[in-house]
Amino acid sequence: MKALRFDKAGLHLADVPMPGTESEALVRVLLSGICNTDLEIVRGYAGFNGTIGHEFVGVAESSPDRPDIVGKRVVGEINAGCGVCEKCLAGDSRHCPTRTVLGIVGRNGAHAEYLQLPARNLLAVPDNVSDEQAVFTEPLAAAYGITEQVEISRETKVTVVGDGKLGLLCAMSLALCSKNIVLVGKHREKLQIAEQNGISGVLLTDLEHGMFSSFDVVVEASGSPSGFATAVDLVRPRGKIVLKSTFHGTPHWQASRIVVDEITIVGSRCGRFAPAMEILEKGLVRVEDLIADHFPLVQGIAAIKQAAEKNVLKILLRP
Amino acid sequence: MKALRFDKAGLHLADVPMPGTESEALVRVLLSGICNTDLEIVRGYAGFNGTIGHEFVGVAESSPDRPDIVGKRVVGEINAGCGVCEKCLAGDSRHCPTRTVLGIVGRNGAHAEYLQLPARNLLAVPDNVSDEQAVFTEPLAAAYGITEQVEISRETKVTVVGDGKLGLLCAMSLALCSKNIVLVGKHREKLQIAEQNGISGVLLTDLEHGMFSSFDVVVEASGSPSGFATAVDLVRPRGKIVLKSTFHGTPHWQASRIVVDEITIVGSRCGRFAPAMEILEKGLVRVEDLIADHFPLVQGIAAIKQAAEKNVLKILLRP
Repeated sequence: MKALRFDKAGLHLADVPMPGTESEALVRVLLSGICNTDLEIVRGYAGFNGTIGHEFVGVAESSPDRPDIVGKRVVGEINAGCGVCEKCLAGDSRHCPTRTVLGIVGRNGAHAEYLQLPARNLLAVPDNVSDEQAVFTEPLAAAYGITEQVEISRETKVTVVGDGKLGLLCAMSLALCSKNIVLVGKHREKLQIAEQNGISGVLLTDLEHGMFSSFDVVVEASGSPSGFATAVDLVRPRGKIVLKSTFHGTPHWQASRIVVDEITIVGSRCGRFAPAMEILEKGLVRVEDLIADHFPLVQGIAAIKQAAEKNVLKILLRP
Repeated sequence: MKALRFDKAGLHLADVPMPGTESEALVRVLLSGICNTDLEIVRGYAGFNGTIGHEFVGVAESSPDRPDIVGKRVVGEINAGCGVCEKCLAGDSRHCPTRTVLGIVGRNGAHAEYLQLPARNLLAVPDNVSDEQAVFTEPLAAAYGITEQVEISRETKVTVVGDGKLGLLCAMSLALCSKNIVLVGKHREKLQIAEQNGISGVLLTDLEHGMFSSFDVVVEASGSPSGFATAVDLVRPRGKIVLKSTFHGTPHWQASRIVVDEITIVGSRCGRFAPAMEILEKGLVRVEDLIADHFPLVQGIAAIKQAAEKNVLKILLRP
């Protein structure tokens, strides 16, 4: 089968054996989405070798221990825990210390014709959710997962820093909880997508003095050290900064403001799939507004190249 | 009256007018304690000009609106809010944006014969609490204030990084909540003080591999960027780092670990005085173990010099 791989030979399309399926479910991929984490892997920052990609929708072709999902469209939780450690037994395989992660850590990913995952990781897609919507389940779960870590009510003043795919998804999903969401970014055309979804967009250069130290919750979704500095500027005393982007490097920050104003910084990675699927099923977030382009899998290298360009939103691959 | 001051002339002992007392209480200082914040001010990091010092016990000599405390020994909450803003009306003058802070922001401090504070800031000292104990109320409140921000139960695994005055106070006060407290530091003689109080002390160089990524809560009390890096190493996935030291500069850190392991960082500055005084009244923390030396106020410059030396614990000044 065809797979888009990264290893010491760099990024390349390869013919590889079908996944082994003795103990896990086999999924035929219908669509996969390119995430910034894929781009980091391809830049060599993440130490992963293998088939990349972790956002997908597919059809379960076989499943040794869950025959109920065979033949159904599915999405899949990307963390596969060992199943026996303290974290796994407590139901939190997302933090299993020896977990594999689809297309990220020790497990071949989704930019391929087929993938394998433990059957327990799979979730069926309702009929009224299209493939183009379902492929957003993983990033939407990650965005909406913020609400599991930080309390956000109708009145909570929230700002999201960064108007890329992740920032837009965060703003659009948190708007389901709060009526006070502001998206701060550098690109008027992306802010317009937020505005079409009822969210205030503000250009970074238009931030007003009165906005500083005023937000209850600030989500850093720009992936840049300067975005983190902006987040520190915007959060109110005793407010919370949610660190959503897995950026590398060492952000420069004044620790004294964090202490003196007793600010909390919350690292946030994954979220649960079921609430995200419910959002898609009810049509509450228009994820399809974020699609920039489709490519066939065989043009995966060109797709990754386009995804890495500035200002490009979600690129989808179709095997 | 005599006062230890810092301004463009540097640190000096001065004869200054008595505080004006029209609307605030006048306190005759019995003892004051030298804090690392005083040392930062004297190094010019904090932008404060005036009489330094914010840890004190004294006698209320006059009070226009609280005659009940006149003649009593008192300690005092150091933040003086405007009284009319949203924060102050919500009872949180510690975060009033125009607050003054005793000996730190816009208000003369405690290393003097007299000081003034709003009478509502003062708390009477019970008879069985000595002056030497009462002068620790403010730093003990700051240490124990961690329990208002982070849940700590008997089983919570806590480590405190930094065996200075603040780290020792944090370890000794958190030991009232958890039976699993470890103090990590560089000085065997300071770790011994913790051990005399039933806390495990570990030299930084003796940290074992099994301790990494294992603590539920890590308190950074070393005031150094390397201490923060140690805290990040020690905290478990989904654990919490309490940032207790107002160190300046930009800590270097791998933001990716905070995100991937969904770690929370909690800035922590002040705590409430009443619970701290209750701890002293019940004799639950032997703060007196932290006293290194006493100086008369007139030798304040020598006292500050000694306090700034490595390995020195609490220095007290007596007017």
